[in-house]
Amino acid sequence: LRENTRYCRQLPQWRQSTTIRAYSRGGKREAAVSEPGGQGGLSGTHALDEEQIIRFAREFDPQPFHTDPDAAVDTMFGGLAASGWHTMALTMRLLVESVPIAKGVIGSGGEIAWPRATRPGDVLHVVSEIVEIVPNRSRPDRAMVLMRSETRNQRDEVAQTFTAKLVVFRRTS
Amino acid sequence: LRENTRYCRQLPQWRQSTTIRAYSRGGKREAAVSEPGGQGGLSGTHALDEEQIIRFAREFDPQPFHTDPDAAVDTMFGGLAASGWHTMALTMRLLVESVPIAKGVIGSGGEIAWPRATRPGDVLHVVSEIVEIVPNRSRPDRAMVLMRSETRNQRDEVAQTFTAKLVVFRRTS
Repeated sequence: LRENTRYCRQLPQWRQSTTIRAYSRGGKREAAVSEPGGQGGLSGTHALDEEQIIRFAREFDPQPFHTDPDAAVDTMFGGLAASGWHTMALTMRLLVESVPIAKGVIGSGGEIAWPRATRPGDVLHVVSEIVEIVPNRSRPDRAMVLMRSETRNQRDEVAQTFTAKLVVFRRTS
Repeated sequence: LRENTRYCRQLPQWRQSTTIRAYSRGGKREAAVSEPGGQGGLSGTHALDEEQIIRFAREFDPQPFHTDPDAAVDTMFGGLAASGWHTMALTMRLLVESVPIAKGVIGSGGEIAWPRATRPGDVLHVVSEIVEIVPNRSRPDRAMVLMRSETRNQRDEVAQTFTAKLVVFRRTS
């Protein structure tokens, strides 16, 4: 429990959250379930436009529904949509700017889903919560922190969910 | 089984693979295990350099180990490393250029892991295999195809694994 508190101290906005309190009370290494009303970490926003969507897609995901507004109409998307990796990359930027981990937001992997397309004109923000903190037994200076992030648009619709496995180092001070 | 063959026809290089043959023989909807020597789909290559790594990271993942070769030395990475999302975005580019799906490589999500850092000078390629094909019961024009891709460097070391859930449409011809 004391170990967990040390990692939590790096995450002040989450320390107040129901998730973290529930976890700390139990002292278990299992996932804590967020109670309704539990406050998560909140990022800034990013406004997407057609130019950004096309520029990213031309370099990394050159498919008509991401690069050509006219051709996109006759595809599954019914119009221009951002590459899912563009939504993810912007999510990472918003996380880096808002998640208070001293040595950086370092992921060893994670699970991603896109329940809804991201469109030109969408304004994205990210809501995150800590799901689990697992101290590393062989390397006592670090823990694996499972963080779940929802990337939402200006209508608060979820465009992406991402559950990251983060490598978090213990505070030395 | 006939249904599966229709989706497989879009993936000629995988039709020859042990994975697909094993799957077709069984006709099951469970994951087929690739036998040793099973041939997967192979992408082209992409050579990464310091300039690309820093440019991507400044826009999407601005942390010292991705943007500053000097500062990176004293981090967990011990030197400049590409953002994992950069490795993923390049993987997507290589997949789009090499995976033969008529209506595009469209993912609804997936699972990602980075067992090894990607460095300046690395030359990446992607090896993929179809793990599972699940016809959509309510929408007979499409199937969910589970594709596992390894992104490897010039020493054939695995820098990233990505298991994608793809939306694949049936051939109409």
